[in-house]
Amino acid sequence: MHYLDHAATAPIRPCAVAAWADTARLLNPGGQYASGRLARAALEEARERIAHALGCEPIEVIFTGSGTESCNIAVQGLWRAAGRGRIISTPIEHPAVAETVKALAGEGAGLDLLPVGPGGVVVPDSRLDTRASLATCMWANNETGAIQPVAEICARAAAGTPVHVDATQVVGHLPVDFAALGATTLAAGAHKFGGPRGVGLLIARRSPAPAPVLFGGGQERGIRPGTADVAGAVATAAALTEAVSELSGAAARIAELRDRLQAGILDRVNDVLVHGADVDRLPGHLHLSFPGAEGDSLIMLLDSAGIACSTGSACSAGVNRASDVLLAMGVSEHDARGAVRFTLGPTNTEADVDRVLEVIADVVARARLAGMA
Amino acid sequence: MHYLDHAATAPIRPCAVAAWADTARLLNPGGQYASGRLARAALEEARERIAHALGCEPIEVIFTGSGTESCNIAVQGLWRAAGRGRIISTPIEHPAVAETVKALAGEGAGLDLLPVGPGGVVVPDSRLDTRASLATCMWANNETGAIQPVAEICARAAAGTPVHVDATQVVGHLPVDFAALGATTLAAGAHKFGGPRGVGLLIARRSPAPAPVLFGGGQERGIRPGTADVAGAVATAAALTEAVSELSGAAARIAELRDRLQAGILDRVNDVLVHGADVDRLPGHLHLSFPGAEGDSLIMLLDSAGIACSTGSACSAGVNRASDVLLAMGVSEHDARGAVRFTLGPTNTEADVDRVLEVIADVVARARLAGMA
Repeated sequence: MHYLDHAATAPIRPCAVAAWADTARLLNPGGQYASGRLARAALEEARERIAHALGCEPIEVIFTGSGTESCNIAVQGLWRAAGRGRIISTPIEHPAVAETVKALAGEGAGLDLLPVGPGGVVVPDSRLDTRASLATCMWANNETGAIQPVAEICARAAAGTPVHVDATQVVGHLPVDFAALGATTLAAGAHKFGGPRGVGLLIARRSPAPAPVLFGGGQERGIRPGTADVAGAVATAAALTEAVSELSGAAARIAELRDRLQAGILDRVNDVLVHGADVDRLPGHLHLSFPGAEGDSLIMLLDSAGIACSTGSACSAGVNRASDVLLAMGVSEHDARGAVRFTLGPTNTEADVDRVLEVIADVVARARLAGMA
Repeated sequence: MHYLDHAATAPIRPCAVAAWADTARLLNPGGQYASGRLARAALEEARERIAHALGCEPIEVIFTGSGTESCNIAVQGLWRAAGRGRIISTPIEHPAVAETVKALAGEGAGLDLLPVGPGGVVVPDSRLDTRASLATCMWANNETGAIQPVAEICARAAAGTPVHVDATQVVGHLPVDFAALGATTLAAGAHKFGGPRGVGLLIARRSPAPAPVLFGGGQERGIRPGTADVAGAVATAAALTEAVSELSGAAARIAELRDRLQAGILDRVNDVLVHGADVDRLPGHLHLSFPGAEGDSLIMLLDSAGIACSTGSACSAGVNRASDVLLAMGVSEHDARGAVRFTLGPTNTEADVDRVLEVIADVVARARLAGMA
């Protein structure tokens, strides 16, 4: 199998599997006894390693159940804590933010969307100059990989506006320095960088802290209740530490593979759009449209050839419609329907690129024929 | 180590560790390709096994990140879906429900608490006879183990009142038949029955469904977004299947050990209160007060003797105050402060009971001396 859907889920790193299996037997870190203290020590060591990898303090690391939960706590919680006023967002957010913002708009939040340029990059503008209850922007788009001006947004946001950064696609893929960024909160999901599913990270400054969305036993600074998942935290720390240590070499190698894939496809197929080609993007992302073909047909034909990729967001898999992100970038609905996303990661080799290049002309031709029927 | 805090976290079952390690490499079940379908098949098989173990339909099984999250989705979500009116609850709920209900009261929910008898059992009364936006009651209390009349509450609740049952202490410990119970939703946490931390179950009838608390990609019937944790789900199914298969034998053996522990302590120590002694309770629970001693001192001295137990709720560990549950049962604050909870599970043997009986008289005497100081 040629796996080119790393942005949906990265294959779990062997070091994360081993770390999980080694610590799954640890008990409740809330226990006031020797085995509870052992579990607590493992949890706090994981927190310290993650803080070290992301340039924040250990107390700023909150373990959650997913990147989606992290975004929900940040967006709902900061907005509620800041008085339920105006929200500044963007038209290209992942559903974890976009749907949450939509729900808050239903609760009366005013909503200002920053504009997006044709390359899929958000344009910080005067909407940021007056105080809002929340500004939120992803660090890199999950479909195109386009890197967003989050540092500029953090710097420009009016005093008193908390800023959330959804870094789900970035953590473990690009260097992250939370303190330097200046965001209030930052979200990540462990399975995007080779950690386990079921673990999210919310990096949250001491103040302003999000109001809780879930209520319970007061764990994780009262921001996320529930018995801490020690093994999940330790496995996440292992995966993140490894990912960050490999960053410089891996990113360059992956980008080289991606560039060869892009050039090879453009050589072999006529009438191809590369989304985000002219902007700074994540090293592993290649998002294309083959106008005249349906994304779902392309995915299916590629699957038959042993290639795993997606139309853009696995989160809306099964629903065959044009991507909101592409439409927001000004791509026509016709072109957007022919979108395919290849996302490469550390496990990919030249053989994966070769396989796509071997079949892509035939796949696109067949999908375009089907599209004309 | 003599581990007698199973109600906080049960040691993970080897079958769950093996199931997790076997499936951690599965990819995103949302992927429209061969490896995505493999992951989806594993997830759906886990859902079917859990449905089989709990007497519900597979579509009624929602995977969440914890028992706490399951309770939050049910309580917040059913209340919002039913029009944000009156809530019927009890004074002995776990913080996952109690704190959530308190937060909803802050949003304007009227609150009716059912009374509690001296044995710690809730009394269903006429408060249930008129329609409310939610009725919620735990199946068994986490401190005393007292089993609650949840079937009666489900039956008596006025037509149109959704009923949530927090079964965190019961699933895997007593037989559960969701269809027969008649509840709208039922919550459990995998780590209470030897599954992994970081996985909760919400059993939710098709209708009325809770409004979502977290927003995102629409997974899990739109009730709980985020990429599904396939390995966590499979490990949970393995643990639950094993726990349920052992139920009849294990429950009797554990209750026998517990009864010997209780009798032995009463033989060796004067002035002991057994909370819930005269009511139907979980087989592994033994909740006692040693008036004149502080619970925290008792826990610390028992820890020094190699015995792990708690004062009641690990969720509020570190906070030395009398249990709300005991106070609601009519126990005096003085007596409540001397509470210790031993909870036994499948891993316990006679040796664990022997060790407690060997040291308990000395431990209590020393804690009482300290209490007089």
